[in-house]
Parts: sequence; C-alpha cells; structure tokens
Amino acid sequence: VFEPLSHKTIEWVGGLDGHVQLVDQTLLPGEYRVMTCEDLDTLWEAIRNLRVRGAPAIGVATAYGVVLGTRQASTPQSFFEKLHSACEYLAECRPTAVNLFWALDRMRRVAEANRDARVDDLKAAMLKAAQAIRDEDAATCRAIGAAGESLIRDGDAVLTHCNAGGLATAEYGTALAVMYAAHERGRRFRVYADETRPLLQGARLTAWELAQAGVPVTVICDNMAGFLMKQGKVNLVITGADRIARNGDTANKIGTYSLAVLAKAHGVPFFVAAPLSTIDMKLSDGSGIPIEERSRDEVSKGFGRVTVPDGVACYNPAFDVTPADLIAGIVTEKGLIRPVTEARLREIFDNGSCKANKNG
Amino acid sequence: VFEPLSHKTIEWVGGLDGHVQLVDQTLLPGEYRVMTCEDLDTLWEAIRNLRVRGAPAIGVATAYGVVLGTRQASTPQSFFEKLHSACEYLAECRPTAVNLFWALDRMRRVAEANRDARVDDLKAAMLKAAQAIRDEDAATCRAIGAAGESLIRDGDAVLTHCNAGGLATAEYGTALAVMYAAHERGRRFRVYADETRPLLQGARLTAWELAQAGVPVTVICDNMAGFLMKQGKVNLVITGADRIARNGDTANKIGTYSLAVLAKAHGVPFFVAAPLSTIDMKLSDGSGIPIEERSRDEVSKGFGRVTVPDGVACYNPAFDVTPADLIAGIVTEKGLIRPVTEARLREIFDNGSCKANKNG
Repeated sequence: VFEPLSHKTIEWVGGLDGHVQLVDQTLLPGEYRVMTCEDLDTLWEAIRNLRVRGAPAIGVATAYGVVLGTRQASTPQSFFEKLHSACEYLAECRPTAVNLFWALDRMRRVAEANRDARVDDLKAAMLKAAQAIRDEDAATCRAIGAAGESLIRDGDAVLTHCNAGGLATAEYGTALAVMYAAHERGRRFRVYADETRPLLQGARLTAWELAQAGVPVTVICDNMAGFLMKQGKVNLVITGADRIARNGDTANKIGTYSLAVLAKAHGVPFFVAAPLSTIDMKLSDGSGIPIEERSRDEVSKGFGRVTVPDGVACYNPAFDVTPADLIAGIVTEKGLIRPVTEARLREIFDNGSCKANKNG
Repeated sequence: VFEPLSHKTIEWVGGLDGHVQLVDQTLLPGEYRVMTCEDLDTLWEAIRNLRVRGAPAIGVATAYGVVLGTRQASTPQSFFEKLHSACEYLAECRPTAVNLFWALDRMRRVAEANRDARVDDLKAAMLKAAQAIRDEDAATCRAIGAAGESLIRDGDAVLTHCNAGGLATAEYGTALAVMYAAHERGRRFRVYADETRPLLQGARLTAWELAQAGVPVTVICDNMAGFLMKQGKVNLVITGADRIARNGDTANKIGTYSLAVLAKAHGVPFFVAAPLSTIDMKLSDGSGIPIEERSRDEVSKGFGRVTVPDGVACYNPAFDVTPADLIAGIVTEKGLIRPVTEARLREIFDNGSCKANKNG
C-alpha cells in the first residue's frame, strides 16, 4: 500500500492495555511531535485544544476516548457506569462536532448489543468497535481517492482550501485523498494551498502533509486565488466539506464560497470531496445550515501578535455555504456525483447506504 | 476644517532648522509612537522599513529627505553636491516606489530653477517645495473625498481593502477620504476592512484610523468578503490604486482583483479612488503593469510565528490588476470618472492637467 504520510494522525498502539498516539497539530509546522494518551483526560484535552481536529479524526479520537474511559472497569456494572460518564464527559469536549456524537452513539450501541457479556468481553468489544471506526474511515478515504483521481491530469495545478487531508481523518484525507491517489498513479501536478485564515490550516497542515508525501505545493494567501486563476495558473479546485444538503449545497471552511465564485468566473471546475456521511438528506438546501461564529481573537491575535486595534470589531464566521450550481462534482467513496443534482445525490446516497448496511 | 485623524502621518515641524515628525506605522495598532527625524539617515531608515508607507506619503517623505540632506550646505556648490548625493541615496531606499522618484525629480527641478540663488535661498526653496508637495497632496485628498462622498448613502456598508487612508498620504487618504467626507456630512454607514494579507494593512492601519475618526469599522479576513456579499451585507466596495492605465485597468494591492470579481457576481458596485497622478496615460492597458513579487517571509512568518513548513514555496505577488470592465467608477480630485472608458479618463485627465499647469 502506498503510504503518503510518514505519520499516523491518530492510532491505537498495543492491546487493551495500550494507548493512543496522535500528532499534535497545534505544533505544526514548526515541530512534529507525537503525543501519547494513556488516559481519557489527556485525550479529552487534545480534542478540546485542537491537537487532533477534522471531523473524521475527531470521530476516531472520541471512540478511543470511550475505550480509555472504560478499560479499568472490573464488573459489567462499573463498565456501564464508566461508559455513561465517559460519554457525558466527551460530549462537552467539542459540542459542535457532529462526528463526536456519532462516534459516541455507535460505541454505546455496541455496548448495548453486548449487555449480557462478561466485563472483559465488553472492554474488548469497545476496542474492536473503535478500531473499526478508524479502519472504515481509512478505507473510505482510499475509496474517495480512487473515485476522484482521474480528475487530475498530468501538468495540472490544483487549488485547495483549509485542510481536508490525512491530518483531518484517520489517514489519507478527502480532498487530499484525490491528490494522493493521482500522485500514487504517477501523475505530475502542482498544488496551491490557500493559507486559510484565520487558523491557517492550509499553510500549516495541508502544505506540511503534501510536502511529506512529495507532492509539490505552493502556499498562497487567500486573497491571491483570483489573480492566480486570471493568469490561467489553476486547472481545478478541490475542497472538502463539513456538511452537504441533499440538493448539493455545501458548507465548508470560510472562504470556500469565494473560491467557488472565482472559479466559476474563470471557467475553472470546482469539486468537493467528502464521505457520504457528510451528506445530510434531511436538509433540503444550504439555507438550513447554521453558521458558527467564532471568537474575535482568532482574527485579532491569531499568531502571537495583536493585528487589530483594541475595541475594533471582527466578524469571524467559521464556515460558508457554496450553492450546488457552483459545484462541478462531489467525489464520494461510492463514486463521483456529477452533475450535482438532488436526484444524483440520492442515487449515490441510497446505493452507498445499502452497501454500508450489507457490510455493517 | 473637519479633522478625521488625531495625528499627522508626516509633517515638518518648525523652520529650516526644524525636523520631520512621522507616525511609526510598523508599531500600529499595538503602539502609537511619533518619531522625530533630525537627519537624512533616520528618515531614510523610516522609509526603507515601512515606518512611513503609501505612495503619496513616500513622496512627501522623500521631499523632506532632500531638505534634511541639503540644509547644512554652506555654499551653492556644497548645496548641489549634497543635493546630488541625497537624491542618489534616497533613490536606493525603495527603488520600486514611483512617487519617490517623482518627488526627487520635482525637488531637483526647483533647485535647478534657482541655480543662481544664494545658498540660504536655495535651502529655503527646498523646504518650500517640500511643503508644497505635502499641501498639494492634502488638498488632492480632500478633493477626492468631496468628489466621492455622495456614493455612500445612509445605512450603507462599505468594504475596503488594504490601507488607502490618511496613513498612506499626507492626510485624509484616497479611498478613506470618500468615507471621511461622507462621515463629515453626517452620513451613517459601516465599513468592513479586509485585513489584507500578507502585511495586514487593513487590520492594522485602516481599522485604526477609521476607529480614531469615529467611523464604525469591522475587520474581516480576506476570504470572508464573498460570504459577506452573498448575505447582502455590502453595498459598495471602494479601494485605492497604485497605477491606472489609460483604459482604466487598475493595479492595486493583491486581493483587489478577487474583490472586484466577487462584487460583480453579487451586483455590488466596485469603485476606485485615486489622484490623477496615479493614471499613467502612456500605458494602454493593465497588461503593461509589472507585478512585483515580494519575499516568502511575508507569507511564511508574518505573524511572528512560522506558519509555512520549511522548504515549502510561497507565491507572494504584491499587486494584481483589475480590468476596467469590473470598475463602476474612479473617484479623482477632478471628479468621478463613470463609466470607466478611455475617453472619459482622457477628458478628466486633460482637464485636471490643464488646471494643474495653470495653478503651477
């Protein structure tokens, strides 16, 4: 198997008496440090403070947190007590992270399904379930890469925004999976990474992991993307997604919408890469997606220096919504949705869900 | 006279034995410090290291530099020797600043016109010429404000980029002059200031001077402008200009082009405010404007912390070019050019030049 990354974003090392290892992403790109979590408190702090981030990676971390929080139970009763308190504790960790709650639900369901088992079997089932979440995420990312790699041709320049990479997932990523898969097949291309203010995930994380994998990457400030397109230097744009409505409207990191409008104006195709789990079939369109506003400090003193005068307001929405008509296609683990219409989304989604049910 | 700013960006204090005072813009917004330049070396360093910046302000600073560099001459011969070496020295200070060379030319021409004068008269003529450059710039900025203020209506939200304000000129600014003039007339509106990566002049300088003047201002990251427009939160965009070709194509701070495309896509009028001296009638269109690429460090460690991995490339163009067809109008000291066509530019330009000649 091609290994684009020399690291594992997050993994469980050893058996039930083992531990979690994760790359502390707050230190990148200045320092690469793998931290060890032997207990739930340490892992909780790592999730809370964005040492591990990205929706799928948070799901994996949460599942491992449940393992750490229950593995010292000596009776089934204490197991379920510990399970309950671990889930409550983790739920407070990043209350807006959908994958965190999804992972808690799944772990609880596995425990319920084993309610009459011995305590050792319960604990083993937790580790097995957590590993399954991790392995499924990795497999999904590989499948997204395979479904999208043909979009990138020799000589292309691909623009991306934020970090939809291996660091946001168990490994390999979503938008970056498409690039890794093309690279794996020997295709030569260049990536432009928007630095992605305010938190600079593009400069710090996307550039770091692409460079690690040997993919040529150039960092730009977000406001340079239009000028790059005008010069004909961008052949396609690929970003990740945080949430997709059933008509294809896509919420993603702030700045994605501007990129999509600029791409349209320059005839550059704009693609989204995301697992089917990102598609929310209950949402008819993007107007129902709430936009989290984050703290002023992220804008005004992001990197150790005050850059906005005291008393001056900042506006800091974390996401924006790109309408489906600006999106050329959505790459999923079950194939490419193109054109982006509700009918095509439903077709892939129902197909993917059926298969998932058969496998699961 | 309405005084929007509690400071003078740059001024000469006292007579020929006086000194230059300027606001050290590298310390803003954290610290407001007025520095004193008693000699040419100190002023040279201030221009070089962007303590004073913005094309018109650099012109004023350069003229004052010539005064400082010649005022100790004791004979006409030593005056012209000092003039020559001061001009050579200043020319190396910021070799791409057009206004620097323009100011040097003008100071030299004044000296030549007084070639047969006594040394004291020569030195006095230098100070008078430098003050005239400063005063003309201030008057030009006021006239730009008066010509553009009616573009802003009660309740509007105006988006701007970088700093085309009082800090970039002797006082009052160009794009911000329009806002100050509207504010002076009692109109109530809000300004959104792009932070303007990589050097953050919008967050650091535009926000600071608007807040000083009591104009409500909100800082956004550059990548949020499109989302703001999509929400209907922006009524018009006004930016400055570094150079305008005779067809109206406009070079300005990187990111201006993206803003203009986004404004067009959302039906938001996009205006440029600049003195006639910015219009280069020898340039047929924007394709002839060279784009300076600046150092990687501005992108990779702009916030006092390394944000791009070692070895990863950065692309850092200082400017981009916005085509005339994206520009609703150009506000000059001689009136509003609207629509932006070569014929209308030529009309205003010839008119403005004639009047300037008559006055000069």
